[in-house]
Amino acid sequence: KNPFHIAVLAGDGIGREVMPEGLRAVRAAAERFGIALEFHTFDWAHCDYYAAHGQMMPDDWKQQLTGMDAIYFGAVGWPATVADHVSLWGSLLKFRREFDQYINLRPVRLFEGVPCPLAGKQPGDIDYLVVRENTEGEYTALGGVMFEGTEREIVIQESVHSRHGAERLLKYAFELARSRPRKHLSLATKSNGIAISMPWWDRQAEAMAARHPDVAWDKHHIDILTARFVLQPERFDVVAATNLFGDILSDLGPATTGTIGLAPSANLNPERRFPSLFEPVHGSAPDICGQGIANPIAMVWSGALMLDFLTRGQGAGRAAHDAILAAIETVLREGPRTADLGGAASTTEIGQAIARRI
Amino acid sequence: KNPFHIAVLAGDGIGREVMPEGLRAVRAAAERFGIALEFHTFDWAHCDYYAAHGQMMPDDWKQQLTGMDAIYFGAVGWPATVADHVSLWGSLLKFRREFDQYINLRPVRLFEGVPCPLAGKQPGDIDYLVVRENTEGEYTALGGVMFEGTEREIVIQESVHSRHGAERLLKYAFELARSRPRKHLSLATKSNGIAISMPWWDRQAEAMAARHPDVAWDKHHIDILTARFVLQPERFDVVAATNLFGDILSDLGPATTGTIGLAPSANLNPERRFPSLFEPVHGSAPDICGQGIANPIAMVWSGALMLDFLTRGQGAGRAAHDAILAAIETVLREGPRTADLGGAASTTEIGQAIARRI
Ligand SMILES: CC(C)[C@H](C(=O)O)[C@@H](O)C(=O)O
Ligand SMILES: CC(C)[C@H](C(=O)O)[C@@H](O)C(=O)O
Repeated sequence: KNPFHIAVLAGDGIGREVMPEGLRAVRAAAERFGIALEFHTFDWAHCDYYAAHGQMMPDDWKQQLTGMDAIYFGAVGWPATVADHVSLWGSLLKFRREFDQYINLRPVRLFEGVPCPLAGKQPGDIDYLVVRENTEGEYTALGGVMFEGTEREIVIQESVHSRHGAERLLKYAFELARSRPRKHLSLATKSNGIAISMPWWDRQAEAMAARHPDVAWDKHHIDILTARFVLQPERFDVVAATNLFGDILSDLGPATTGTIGLAPSANLNPERRFPSLFEPVHGSAPDICGQGIANPIAMVWSGALMLDFLTRGQGAGRAAHDAILAAIETVLREGPRTADLGGAASTTEIGQAIARRI
Repeated sequence: KNPFHIAVLAGDGIGREVMPEGLRAVRAAAERFGIALEFHTFDWAHCDYYAAHGQMMPDDWKQQLTGMDAIYFGAVGWPATVADHVSLWGSLLKFRREFDQYINLRPVRLFEGVPCPLAGKQPGDIDYLVVRENTEGEYTALGGVMFEGTEREIVIQESVHSRHGAERLLKYAFELARSRPRKHLSLATKSNGIAISMPWWDRQAEAMAARHPDVAWDKHHIDILTARFVLQPERFDVVAATNLFGDILSDLGPATTGTIGLAPSANLNPERRFPSLFEPVHGSAPDICGQGIANPIAMVWSGALMLDFLTRGQGAGRAAHDAILAAIETVLREGPRTADLGGAASTTEIGQAIARRI
């Protein structure tokens, strides 16, 4: 396809600061490997838009994004102005659901040059992928309050898991595991406590495992799984999880590699019926916003995942991805560094240093 | 009260191996501080009982436990014979609910002599209490499957939170925070994703905070909270959480202190209408059972929490608790050590070493 159309939505807070550096790297890699890209910037899906219009996105947001191959997304949320659940459910979570981005792929990797908070771990000891269900499960606004305002007040919150949803998540995760040298999958569960949905997830995984006999797999209750992310990260290769458990594991995992300022994510509609979305795991970080010190690496790495996804099968995207990753590795090893990694470099300086090495 | 009646239920697996060492320490401390205890051993709430009777406990389990002041509990679960959800919902989770043990108190502390998996942390850097709601929330068997066996199959899982339940948990946690030098409380939430129950929990916490203006508090989404347990454990003092989030945090926290083999828990009915239950956080560990290498310290420490709770206000229980803790500290610092801490000592050797120092 020529060119690929990329929607650029920088969002709020440090999303706006890291986006230019992400674009710088993506442009450099695309140029080097001959991938034609056309960028389309949209000035919505942020809290200033909400302040002006009372909603996060225009009514015709879907039409405006028609024909886009990917969405390159910064971060959303400015709680001082708009409550988080309003800004998030009005933008990011809408994209994930309405564009059926049912895979949230989140690589976790320890890099040379990044001090590891886990004692004695070396690059290579932490290197896995969290595959998170991204459209259903625990994230719902279903349920309600009864006897409100009285002593008997009771709240019901519902989770919704579909066979369609679980099967496609597990299929993707098992196939991904199969494609990797270690061919191993771990399932996050809590079937000993959450008595309806989690035993059911276990059964879905057993059925999918039977169809992938070449993939070794195991199940971990989410409590002990978080402990093992700290004590035995070497065990993990591909980790499949529901929406909530994947959310937790994909913040915890990056924390064990030193900072969540590096962690990228790909919100994928693998069938490409809808645009996929690429964004850092970190949020808009109001606390450090405006100082130009945010680490842009998660944004840059998300861009690498985007190029890889776009041109799958062609090779150029994979090469571009690898070149960006190599540049990130070099910069992490040799510097410069932002404050979260103990340095004093600005967001722009990191972005330039990476782009120079692509 | 004289004597206190203690029900002893060793359960399955390593529960049976660590219980004698727990009793050894509790007896030694009770004797030294003049606390009269009477132990009552019950041979149920384990999977062998299930194999013989088709249920985990006799029909009259409540009557049998009438008059008990506390339940000293090993660990339950033997998945090779009985599915975990059957053994757990038929015993431990029944106690928590039917004896209204609504507080699950789980201290997390880094000890001298225990290698910390977090680089550069010293004893004192990790020292907080997880206060987990223990009777409701995400742990339910409510919900069901629709369109079963078809492609449209859908599963609903319900969580139930009551104002009664949230208020008493938060009240306990805020008062506990107030009683500690740092007077700080952190709430685990996920109000940006779980859209009904979690914003509601936030509001309950805000209301309770208003009644405790001398306690400083903050909220953390569960994803970033797990990251902060790894990156900034010094921030935490008292951490209040729902059933599921408390479950996760009270495995992750101990993992950051080197092993979950040390972590104790107190399942409290603070009003003493029903017996409270004291158990290690670790489970029955079938994988290491039978070798005599399990670390009994979590069981011993749980016994210390039991003595403290039993004699609250009298002083002797607190002294007994502190003496046990001091003995644990000494043994952790000087050895002997079990395999989980890199030693070769047996369960009994550790138990004897602790008892000798009380
Ligand atoms: C902001 C929030 C709704 C979001 C989530 O929980 O999915 C974020 O934490 C993430 O992981 O992308
Ligand atoms: C065994 C299991 C049901 C239990 C729980 O999840 O509560 C355990 O993990 C715990 O933390 O006590």
